[in-house]
Amino acid sequence: MDPARIEAMLDFLALADRLKTVERRGRVPLPDGTTRRENSAEHCWNLALVALLLHREVAAEIDLGRVLSMIAVHDLVEIEAGDTYAYDPAARLTQAAREAAAAELVFGALPPDLGARLRALWEEFEAGETAEARFAMGCDRLQGFLQNVLSEGLAWKEHGVTRADTAPRMQPAMAADPAFAALIGALYARAAAGGMLPE
Amino acid sequence: MDPARIEAMLDFLALADRLKTVERRGRVPLPDGTTRRENSAEHCWNLALVALLLHREVAAEIDLGRVLSMIAVHDLVEIEAGDTYAYDPAARLTQAAREAAAAELVFGALPPDLGARLRALWEEFEAGETAEARFAMGCDRLQGFLQNVLSEGLAWKEHGVTRADTAPRMQPAMAADPAFAALIGALYARAAAGGMLPE
Repeated sequence: MDPARIEAMLDFLALADRLKTVERRGRVPLPDGTTRRENSAEHCWNLALVALLLHREVAAEIDLGRVLSMIAVHDLVEIEAGDTYAYDPAARLTQAAREAAAAELVFGALPPDLGARLRALWEEFEAGETAEARFAMGCDRLQGFLQNVLSEGLAWKEHGVTRADTAPRMQPAMAADPAFAALIGALYARAAAGGMLPE
Repeated sequence: MDPARIEAMLDFLALADRLKTVERRGRVPLPDGTTRRENSAEHCWNLALVALLLHREVAAEIDLGRVLSMIAVHDLVEIEAGDTYAYDPAARLTQAAREAAAAELVFGALPPDLGARLRALWEEFEAGETAEARFAMGCDRLQGFLQNVLSEGLAWKEHGVTRADTAPRMQPAMAADPAFAALIGALYARAAAGGMLPE
């Protein structure tokens, strides 16, 4: 391999490492009974595990390699743009512009062929048009919801999120496949039983 | 989907969440200039990104979907067995037995078909015999080494690790493909230039 290519890959990996310091609102239960915020790198691994569990439960034929590739890169723009909370309408208004600028910087740090390949995966996820992108979206929303249920709805309570507030985010996931509807339905039931999400 | 299957999948995901609390020795640089330990969930995501960057740089034809699936599950046993430091010979003596017992518990929490599928991926990674498992091993060792270089060799210094100590772990990765040899060679050069790893 060309030395410049090697150095560029290592520099990109040094940049990508910062995803481990991007905090989400969802919380991770700790062994001592407290919680801390989840970071976006942990979320990406968790999402990969959800996709691995579910890819044969859905009706569509899913290219798992493409899904897992999309998942690995789908949040890289947050290194520059930060995580945008699902229930923060003001931040969501500027999200697309912030993330497009971040994509130039993050994918631009790679050798052109690799940058184009990773950027195409991110764009496929964002566009949500392929079966793989819709499946990844369903896994993403399921994982975010699950994280709240695992931490007794702390982030929901912190931000005053109601069950109705979650509908615009969770309905597309539930509509993506009956398997998502079943799992998310079961999570709504757990949230209700635990008094985590007011009507 | 059968309700019992749904509940078992959610319970497994609740258990798997604990991987985010398993600390490794490698350290993550923070924006304030300090570091903290990396956890195994972050490591798994990072490894997936390394695999995505490298799978077309190696000579072997690699099934990326299988590699990324293996990566997503390869550390799940640490939920019960903990992370075993690469340079802790006493802990490594008991590692296989501790991880085999953990596998029973972790994969046994899933519906049998899913448990068998995930367990087979973990076993393939551990056996290191397929092209995909060898590729994943190379990515794993590269990522661990990179994490030390990104945090100025702090974990190496903390444990008195020398360049010679790293050879038994890094040589198999460098032998797996010239691309790994080139990238790890460049990382050794960065470590040497930064005085991170004494001879």
